[in-house]
Amino acid sequence: MEILWLSAHPEPASLTAHLRREGIRAARALGHTVTESDLYAMGWDPVVTAADYPDHTGRLLVADASHQALATGRIAPEVHAEQEKLLRADALVVQFPLWWYGPPAILKGWFDRVLVKGLGYGTGERYGAGALAGKRALTVVTAGARGTSMAPRGIHGSLTQILWPLLHGTYFYTGMAALEPLLVPSADRIDAEHAGRAAERLASRLATLFTETPLAYRSETGGDYDDDLVLHPHVAPGDVGLEAHDAGARR
Amino acid sequence: MEILWLSAHPEPASLTAHLRREGIRAARALGHTVTESDLYAMGWDPVVTAADYPDHTGRLLVADASHQALATGRIAPEVHAEQEKLLRADALVVQFPLWWYGPPAILKGWFDRVLVKGLGYGTGERYGAGALAGKRALTVVTAGARGTSMAPRGIHGSLTQILWPLLHGTYFYTGMAALEPLLVPSADRIDAEHAGRAAERLASRLATLFTETPLAYRSETGGDYDDDLVLHPHVAPGDVGLEAHDAGARR
Repeated sequence: MEILWLSAHPEPASLTAHLRREGIRAARALGHTVTESDLYAMGWDPVVTAADYPDHTGRLLVADASHQALATGRIAPEVHAEQEKLLRADALVVQFPLWWYGPPAILKGWFDRVLVKGLGYGTGERYGAGALAGKRALTVVTAGARGTSMAPRGIHGSLTQILWPLLHGTYFYTGMAALEPLLVPSADRIDAEHAGRAAERLASRLATLFTETPLAYRSETGGDYDDDLVLHPHVAPGDVGLEAHDAGARR
Repeated sequence: MEILWLSAHPEPASLTAHLRREGIRAARALGHTVTESDLYAMGWDPVVTAADYPDHTGRLLVADASHQALATGRIAPEVHAEQEKLLRADALVVQFPLWWYGPPAILKGWFDRVLVKGLGYGTGERYGAGALAGKRALTVVTAGARGTSMAPRGIHGSLTQILWPLLHGTYFYTGMAALEPLLVPSADRIDAEHAGRAAERLASRLATLFTETPLAYRSETGGDYDDDLVLHPHVAPGDVGLEAHDAGARR
């Protein structure tokens, strides 16, 4: 299978870079083809501007301008190249250090620029269906926090809660299956032995990349939401947490 | 009082820009002093690199290098300038269009670059205390979604849930009081009348900027968390949602 490995860390000697190299080696050993987008190494510019859409004139409506650019193929070449890589992939691995409880800006802006209207949204289908349906996405996060504090009822929130905009709002929105994210905690205090163990945990997740059960987010058209896109009262009754949207969440 | 108005939209004729101008006018009419960081207009670079810390050598550990750079004052001048603006402010207004359920990359990278170790984290205090304690933060978001769908049990999650990394993980983490965010929904279909009404809603929130009750997130040291930073069983018992961390949430 084809994997697009997206990663973002400024330091080639970082734990993130180490896990990337080990992970890609493990994925290839499993027989997969891996394409890389190492955003810092590429000098990726994460800022959406009118220059992404060379035919655009007048007031910039990002959705409309990007839709038009996608349709005509007249879009910034580096954006087009990433779209092609994404469309070829069967799975996306997204790997980053958690900065302010989200991806570094360089990675956020990969989604901002690449997932234009007509590809990421505005296709008439979303949340469980869309242009990227059939693909899977695994998130691999290093964080300074201890594991206990980044769990349900931990002070930082669980990683699945923290990454809701990515897992539900991006992967699942565009049709991809969101896998349970992999957390490598205490990343600032990690020694060679812990790094080795983290690489093993990553390798074992890669071994089940195409077989494990994704998060069971409720599809938009599966009957759980009403016409206002609010959960019917009988679905996860009384639950106002994000967990209400996950049919597999413990409650 | 002093307000730092942080905003991110590539189009000067956008609804975001309109609300920024109207909001700043309203804040000044209330007697406040407003400083602007209009990130697109400034050409802000959101990417953390080693160049932010000119004295850094060898392997880049972002936390250590940024801590050192803050202590010596040898830090990229544009980062220093934003830190000074932030430290002078009594309140931060953060205004953006919701892209992939988060801030545009250019804005995410303002926090990544400006909130270095020693200012944003690593001060020995966090979650209700820290270097930015005493300041307030109001978030103003335009979104294409309808309001019903961006509410508790709405398919997108409530704005407070979606923005958890910003409200709790950034504002509250650094000591700031996080105010209930202001949502301007259906932003792609808005006409002049709706834009006027949105500006009025913004003006009315600005009128209470320094008096309204912030979100009641639980402080790290207030006795609600145990030594592993997990909520004690008797606090919001059985609640595994992010709402458990907000003493004022309905449940």
